[in-house]
Amino acid sequence: MPAREEPWQAGVGGRAWPLLTLGAAQSTGGRVSPSADSGGAAMTETTSYSGNGLVLVKNPHLDLMEEDVLYHLDLGTKTHNLPAMFGDIKFVCVGGSPNRMRAFAQFMQRELGLAAAGEDVADICAGSDRYAMYRAGPVLSISHGMGIPSISIMLHELIKLLHHAKCRDVTIIRIGTSGGLGIEAGSVVITDTAVDSSFRPRFEQVVLGDVVVRSTELDKDLAEELLACSRDIPDFPTLIGHTMCTYDFYEGQGRLDGALCSFSSEKKLEYLRRAYEAGVRNIEMESSAFAALCRLCGLKAAVVCVTLLDRLEGDQIRASHEVLWEYQQRPQRLIAAFIRKRLGLTRTD
Amino acid sequence: MPAREEPWQAGVGGRAWPLLTLGAAQSTGGRVSPSADSGGAAMTETTSYSGNGLVLVKNPHLDLMEEDVLYHLDLGTKTHNLPAMFGDIKFVCVGGSPNRMRAFAQFMQRELGLAAAGEDVADICAGSDRYAMYRAGPVLSISHGMGIPSISIMLHELIKLLHHAKCRDVTIIRIGTSGGLGIEAGSVVITDTAVDSSFRPRFEQVVLGDVVVRSTELDKDLAEELLACSRDIPDFPTLIGHTMCTYDFYEGQGRLDGALCSFSSEKKLEYLRRAYEAGVRNIEMESSAFAALCRLCGLKAAVVCVTLLDRLEGDQIRASHEVLWEYQQRPQRLIAAFIRKRLGLTRTD
Repeated sequence: MPAREEPWQAGVGGRAWPLLTLGAAQSTGGRVSPSADSGGAAMTETTSYSGNGLVLVKNPHLDLMEEDVLYHLDLGTKTHNLPAMFGDIKFVCVGGSPNRMRAFAQFMQRELGLAAAGEDVADICAGSDRYAMYRAGPVLSISHGMGIPSISIMLHELIKLLHHAKCRDVTIIRIGTSGGLGIEAGSVVITDTAVDSSFRPRFEQVVLGDVVVRSTELDKDLAEELLACSRDIPDFPTLIGHTMCTYDFYEGQGRLDGALCSFSSEKKLEYLRRAYEAGVRNIEMESSAFAALCRLCGLKAAVVCVTLLDRLEGDQIRASHEVLWEYQQRPQRLIAAFIRKRLGLTRTD
Repeated sequence: MPAREEPWQAGVGGRAWPLLTLGAAQSTGGRVSPSADSGGAAMTETTSYSGNGLVLVKNPHLDLMEEDVLYHLDLGTKTHNLPAMFGDIKFVCVGGSPNRMRAFAQFMQRELGLAAAGEDVADICAGSDRYAMYRAGPVLSISHGMGIPSISIMLHELIKLLHHAKCRDVTIIRIGTSGGLGIEAGSVVITDTAVDSSFRPRFEQVVLGDVVVRSTELDKDLAEELLACSRDIPDFPTLIGHTMCTYDFYEGQGRLDGALCSFSSEKKLEYLRRAYEAGVRNIEMESSAFAALCRLCGLKAAVVCVTLLDRLEGDQIRASHEVLWEYQQRPQRLIAAFIRKRLGLTRTD
């Protein structure tokens, strides 16, 4: 085990963060989950990365490109020294809201002893307003907007970034908000499997007009490790369950309060109860694409979302800003505890 | 025709904007396009709005709600006087990027003679970072993020907002960026019909786990009116064509430069050529849901996107920030000309 109690202050600003050699829990990284993708033949060129902890970019064309412009991140291989900027990143946390992800980076800076409370962090993607990106030591915090298409664009470019930067043994976690199903508002759900609106553990990706089906299972060991961490934070309930991922917030999630609604309250409840019986404990809009893409690229991934309401009891999010703000802290607190534990940091403050 | 040459300065700040009575081109508003939705029975309660220019909120449950919290806009019927804030809105322009939509509002303020160059506009949704909203006289400018789920959330809440505010004869236009197909980069495409990744003019909406198919045709007269306006702006080409709307930017649009790519350059070009032959002239990620939702709610809608590259020639967006910035001005300039024409304003500056 390397010296884990070293002064982390050396890493303030991000670039001076020392390359970490991580313990047993993470050094087995790089195990590749079996791919549900059918396009195996074209992908053999890059599967040699397997087992060394590097990110699996499964695209033979990339090696032939002189330059790679990560357009929506406003970064590129010729304009930025990506290995120097990101080579030591070990944790990537993503979430919908840019403000929340900035707050998370500031929170992590304090948790890792890198900065004082309230100290600002710089947006690495300031040249684009599509996403915001911040770092706190070995932790990258990125916003992904709302919905599968928005998170997919970010993930493609992030995965290429981690590849170009030669990052190793990266753990990626989505920390988000969601609607709960049959559980108390404010509960935190760690996703074991993302399911679609028919409760199937699959993500359908259109490739050149054809549908390719991908697995949406998340890393079981990571989910259990996160659940174990949650036991040290007794002031909110945390559980493991399925997460339903939809393309729509209103009709797609059975809400009665959209601009369109053609179904009754009874039909809505019947649908949500069927979801509950299928093991769904929360509903959001990004987990299936996140799980599928991370799995295919050999990234150990988790989804940790707080529930803002119980959808069996209503549709509108009516809690006060203060209550919602505290709810949104919960996944952040859990992930901070997890990262501190992984880094071997003990709480002294 | 009302007094259209009145000093528009009276409207600075938004709320004092006089209620406009619009000319023949718009007063026929409220014509309801035939709905492809199968849920007709539950919707009869609200179709009585038809023909009076009001927005068609097709949800009988809404009338039973004491309060409507437009969560992602941070607005609500009890917390805000929506008729006073928005009752005189006649044009809604939406686009992906918050910075671009702020710039558009500032541009419109100048175009309508409401403010000096560079004068700032306030974000009406400042309490939420999901979307940004600005107004310039009778024009609302709103960001919608990237992808169908993100624009759908915004549209549901916007349509309810226009309904609560009792707005009449509203025209809604998406001004965006896109990839072109067989046309010069920088061309502006006015969409006649949005098509899916199989080039079909339809949008599939999941409702309680079942798929409902909706029409994605846009208002033909509005498209022609916009094309006519474009003839006064000779420094870039404008055309009418189909727009392909995808759920993914990389694999879904046949790009070779994503983190995953399992197809050859030849297969990609074959797919894009088939799209061209089907009438597709540009590709983006929001038009089908936008067309379907606006059509169902009786909003006259248009999609006007500039193309940032020709996808038959490449995948990466490599133009300089300056060139891209100028390209993004083009739909804004066209829409400004259209709005000025609708308002009977002649250019004096």
